Amino acid sequence: MRDLHPLSAAEARRRIRSGAHTGHTAALAPGHVQGNLAILPADWAEEFLRFCRLNPKPCPVLAVGRPGRPELPELGADIDIRSDIPRYRVFERGREVAAPTDIGDYWRNDLVAFVLGCSFSFEWPMRDAGLELRHVTEGVTVPMYRTTVATAPTERLRGPLVVSMRPFRPADAVRAIEISARYPRVHGAPVHIGLPHLLGIADLARPDFGDAVRVGADELPVFWACGVTPQAVIKEARPPFFISHFPGAMLVTDLLNETLAA
Amino acid sequence: MRDLHPLSAAEARRRIRSGAHTGHTAALAPGHVQGNLAILPADWAEEFLRFCRLNPKPCPVLAVGRPGRPELPELGADIDIRSDIPRYRVFERGREVAAPTDIGDYWRNDLVAFVLGCSFSFEWPMRDAGLELRHVTEGVTVPMYRTTVATAPTERLRGPLVVSMRPFRPADAVRAIEISARYPRVHGAPVHIGLPHLLGIADLARPDFGDAVRVGADELPVFWACGVTPQAVIKEARPPFFISHFPGAMLVTDLLNETLAA
Repeated sequence: MRDLHPLSAAEARRRIRSGAHTGHTAALAPGHVQGNLAILPADWAEEFLRFCRLNPKPCPVLAVGRPGRPELPELGADIDIRSDIPRYRVFERGREVAAPTDIGDYWRNDLVAFVLGCSFSFEWPMRDAGLELRHVTEGVTVPMYRTTVATAPTERLRGPLVVSMRPFRPADAVRAIEISARYPRVHGAPVHIGLPHLLGIADLARPDFGDAVRVGADELPVFWACGVTPQAVIKEARPPFFISHFPGAMLVTDLLNETLAA
Repeated sequence: MRDLHPLSAAEARRRIRSGAHTGHTAALAPGHVQGNLAILPADWAEEFLRFCRLNPKPCPVLAVGRPGRPELPELGADIDIRSDIPRYRVFERGREVAAPTDIGDYWRNDLVAFVLGCSFSFEWPMRDAGLELRHVTEGVTVPMYRTTVATAPTERLRGPLVVSMRPFRPADAVRAIEISARYPRVHGAPVHIGLPHLLGIADLARPDFGDAVRVGADELPVFWACGVTPQAVIKEARPPFFISHFPGAMLVTDLLNETLAA
């Protein structure tokens, strides 16, 4: 595992908690699992958990907090979810109302925190295996696309699967599939490869989220279920209150990626 | 595991040894590993073993006999490689001279038997997972192609990688990759997917071995390293003497496919 940043996960969280780090977390505490955040009122939480169980590839739940409690001891003894993420997005009825670096002022006794696995956990082993990640090479955000594939709905939560795309030459695509398949708790193996029109994606150069990347004539686009799926689904359902992490600014946990390998 | 034929591996070998079964072995002793055969004089055997170690994907060695000895105890206590394969091909200086059902008359004190893993071992788990194997549906032999990819050579053994091809829809292709990757001792994960011209394959409808199969517009061709590779390489090298199994008529071993899963 590369050690680009010698910060441990707990040190990274301390810097974030103190307000010294408010940006993205991509290079923090290499080797440690990072997670997407979703905070919902208790009367939506049970349904969201069911939605995640129905759609484990886009919604791989790593931990669920107790109602009103900011701790997530499975992910780190000291975690306080109100302050340990660099920046948050606060939504009321689907509309973003704030992007604070701390949500102490928004916390309520009925809120439930969910942390979902993210693709960083399989991208590091891919890089360690010598695979090129095009969005990393190009210094942009991975391209993401809404598909015509529907998620399995609950009463209030429904919407299309969102996928992220990484291009690879064929033999590297096989290796990328092999590596990501070892991480079922963080999206796992791809949902699709090679024929984007079958997902309803008309133009790879026009992603719905993130940035376009070059796809060579000798490469195949490979598509993974994406953590933007549950965020888009929740936003569309317009619950009275919802908090997510700010894109790229995630929870750094004490878990090691390798412990998630099947 | 399907139980199409209730024959145990040892019973299947007994029928083959007695001459009662001289055809292909595809449906015999489901769940048991079947193997390709290569028998070479001792002065070629060491080099062939090195060739296999250099090219483990097309040449996954399951067992090597002692010079002059027909037993392969790792694969079955009673195995006599001179009689336990339904039909053989005998080559002298690269030319086929006989296709007997028993090689007792050809056996010599300097012969070394090699048994290599074959794709049956990952095709059964694919079928159990609900994947369609097109060549099985169409009742033909899997299509195989010479590629422009060179194997790693030794002094006398060199030649192109031969691949087998199975078409799948994209999500099924991912599952086929995941399943075969669990079986590194029997070819393992594919070597290529989706862009046959990069392997030097101009026309999927014209395989070099086996039969063409339909590839749908919503499917990708997936390519695995094939056990025909070492046979073609040996034939081309024209050793004074060489025996292989007859296509489709393999050694039924006592090993269970599941024991090969990584």
